[in-house]
Amino acid sequence: MIQTDICIVGAGPVGLFAVFEAGLLKMRCHLIDVLPQVGGQLSEIYPHKPIYDIPGYPTIKAQELIDNQMLQIAPFQPTFSLGERVEHLEKQADGTYIITGSDGTAIHCKVVVIAGGLGCFEPRKPEIVNLSLFEKSHVHYMVKDPERFRDRSIVIAGGGDSALDWTVFLADVAEHVTLVHRSDSFRGAPDSAEKVYQLAQQGKINLLLSHNLMALEGGATLEQIRLNNKAKEEIVVPAHDFIPLYGLSPKLGPIADWGLAIDKNAIAVDTFDYSTNIERIYAIGDINTYPGKLKLILSGYHEAALMCQSAFKYVYPEQKLSFKYTTVNGVNAF
Amino acid sequence: MIQTDICIVGAGPVGLFAVFEAGLLKMRCHLIDVLPQVGGQLSEIYPHKPIYDIPGYPTIKAQELIDNQMLQIAPFQPTFSLGERVEHLEKQADGTYIITGSDGTAIHCKVVVIAGGLGCFEPRKPEIVNLSLFEKSHVHYMVKDPERFRDRSIVIAGGGDSALDWTVFLADVAEHVTLVHRSDSFRGAPDSAEKVYQLAQQGKINLLLSHNLMALEGGATLEQIRLNNKAKEEIVVPAHDFIPLYGLSPKLGPIADWGLAIDKNAIAVDTFDYSTNIERIYAIGDINTYPGKLKLILSGYHEAALMCQSAFKYVYPEQKLSFKYTTVNGVNAF
Ligand SMILES: Cc1cc2nc3c(=O)[nH]c(=O)nc-3n(C[C@H](O)[C@H](O)[C@H](O)COP(=O)(O)OP(=O)(O)OC[C@H]3O[C@@H](n4cnc5c(N)ncnc54)[C@H](O)[C@@H]3O)c2cc1C
Ligand SMILES: Cc1cc2nc3c(=O)[nH]c(=O)nc-3n(C[C@H](O)[C@H](O)[C@H](O)COP(=O)(O)OP(=O)(O)OC[C@H]3O[C@@H](n4cnc5c(N)ncnc54)[C@H](O)[C@@H]3O)c2cc1C
Repeated sequence: MIQTDICIVGAGPVGLFAVFEAGLLKMRCHLIDVLPQVGGQLSEIYPHKPIYDIPGYPTIKAQELIDNQMLQIAPFQPTFSLGERVEHLEKQADGTYIITGSDGTAIHCKVVVIAGGLGCFEPRKPEIVNLSLFEKSHVHYMVKDPERFRDRSIVIAGGGDSALDWTVFLADVAEHVTLVHRSDSFRGAPDSAEKVYQLAQQGKINLLLSHNLMALEGGATLEQIRLNNKAKEEIVVPAHDFIPLYGLSPKLGPIADWGLAIDKNAIAVDTFDYSTNIERIYAIGDINTYPGKLKLILSGYHEAALMCQSAFKYVYPEQKLSFKYTTVNGVNAF
Repeated sequence: MIQTDICIVGAGPVGLFAVFEAGLLKMRCHLIDVLPQVGGQLSEIYPHKPIYDIPGYPTIKAQELIDNQMLQIAPFQPTFSLGERVEHLEKQADGTYIITGSDGTAIHCKVVVIAGGLGCFEPRKPEIVNLSLFEKSHVHYMVKDPERFRDRSIVIAGGGDSALDWTVFLADVAEHVTLVHRSDSFRGAPDSAEKVYQLAQQGKINLLLSHNLMALEGGATLEQIRLNNKAKEEIVVPAHDFIPLYGLSPKLGPIADWGLAIDKNAIAVDTFDYSTNIERIYAIGDINTYPGKLKLILSGYHEAALMCQSAFKYVYPEQKLSFKYTTVNGVNAF
């Protein structure tokens, strides 16, 4: 069992900054996140986009901000369980909590900080016969390692940026790429769509607009995908792998069942210390709500700072907290 | 008369960031500050010190943070009245305000944002006979231009860092330096004190510990300063200039008379939008107080963002505000 002072659910920018503020007060943190990497929305949705409203940075790329935050918290040696979803919360007789994740990791902590952002990102699934048969082995809701598809026949489905971008990228990697989209135009960036049309014209990919997915077909492995068009004419395309890219939809998930006061799909908190209705449980960042709330990164930073001042009493019940400037006192590493 | 949407009192880090948040909502700002430069406490008190708790900066020098903030707000072309203290506030029939400064500058605005930090810095004055006689001409509460003292006889008074640091620095510039301190040990950094003791031993400065200031003496100009020691023995030291460095003490100043609700020497605000008890007047940064308040730069940034959402209705009463991410919408310069 992992022992820590504060268990932070969510390793987005706000959860990460909470490690720093906690560290200044000598509180140790363990973070758990369902995504395979830290950084929350910034690393998952828009790592290469510049952000302009981080105070003191006229512009900074999302991933760069996260990298800098990782450097900033390094002195406080946070520990991580990545790729694991938080599921259960169990209150102990002494008021502390044990949190368990989907892979069975158990974390014993004095304070729980929910920095879960928009919640767990879960892929939107396509309606197609036999999905469950091949889901574990040959259906990929995210492209984690493009090399996985080298010299294979793949079918990508979707009409947004990730479907377009991965089609362009994998055209050079896979043996054969088919892009299927139910409509006759794309939602993604016009210049990405332009590239896809060109690849189709050059015969480098197979583009099927206005087609619907019908069924995954094969034996021990996926072999082909059956589709039809508006006229209900059926075709099959060869496919070792199926990559449906219909976006990720965030869900509050198991946290919704913890008895927390919920308002507009977010956790209601007190702006005095960003505490929830349950003692020792705080909520900061995009996942909380209060009068005036803005879903901004800089607001989450402030919430993290005030939260730590309050959490201190559960970690060091005997001590009086004294507030000190970093400029005067420095950062005292663990 | 200067016309602007928002008049910001105080050009510290928080007032500066308010310009950015206001700019995103197409509101123009004019800033007024009693200090000759922007940056508030950071530029005035600790420009070269590293700060460690600016989110996304493992470390950044105070002045560098201010410089970056100036770059960040440049697209929104803020205007400044520096070296001028805000004195009066006059409500107009239409609800707008006219603010006037100590030099007579008048600013007509739709919203007033007080980002006055700890207030106006005012020098602590020494008790010494004839101070008022030479105050305008030969008494210097700050060293703005060290060259002013080249080849002159000066008396520095005080026992803190600035007295020590300026003694060391001016020893090479002035003709003759005397450092007077009423106690027999210094409050400043031990290594600075060490340097001062060395200079005294080498005969490069005249160090008078456990001495009290009695009187400034001279005719048209300052000529000498009379002192005594614990045994009441009097001495005089030559002095063209007198530099008492007893620190700056911040004062809420004229703002205290505007009818604002004050709590613990700070302006009470509502955390929904950081509004004060007077309509169209907001207070952000170190100058405000609310339950949980921390005097942190990062908190002022958050306060500035929420404040602007609320101020918008006074600047664009007919428009509905729509909240957009900078990553998606960019920064639309004026
Ligand atoms: C396209 C886009 C542009 C944006 N631009 C800006 C901008 O310019 N400026 C700005 O300030 N903000 C911007 N934002 C918003 C900003 O990204 C969010 O405010 C920020 O990410 C919130 O940080 P967070 O740490 O609270 O949550 P998140 O970044 O959402 O991180 C939460 C983490 O918690 C994890 N999690 C949730 N539930 C669980 C669970 N049960 N178990 C395990 N892990 C869990 C998630 O996987 C996620 O990694 C933008 C957002 C988007 C989508
Ligand atoms: C030594 C030291 C170390 C610090 N270290 C840290 C740290 O590590 N981290 C951190 O977050 N914070 C730190 N702080 C605190 C930080 O400096 C303040 O939180 C910050 O400066 C507040 O910004 P502000 O813009 O609200 O006010 P200020 O920086 O105080 O600026 C207010 C401005 O308003 C002006 N003003 C006031 N009244 C008037 C008037 N009537 N007319 C005209 N002008 C007026 C003042 O001249 C001043 O320039 C430190 C402070 C000190 C002194």
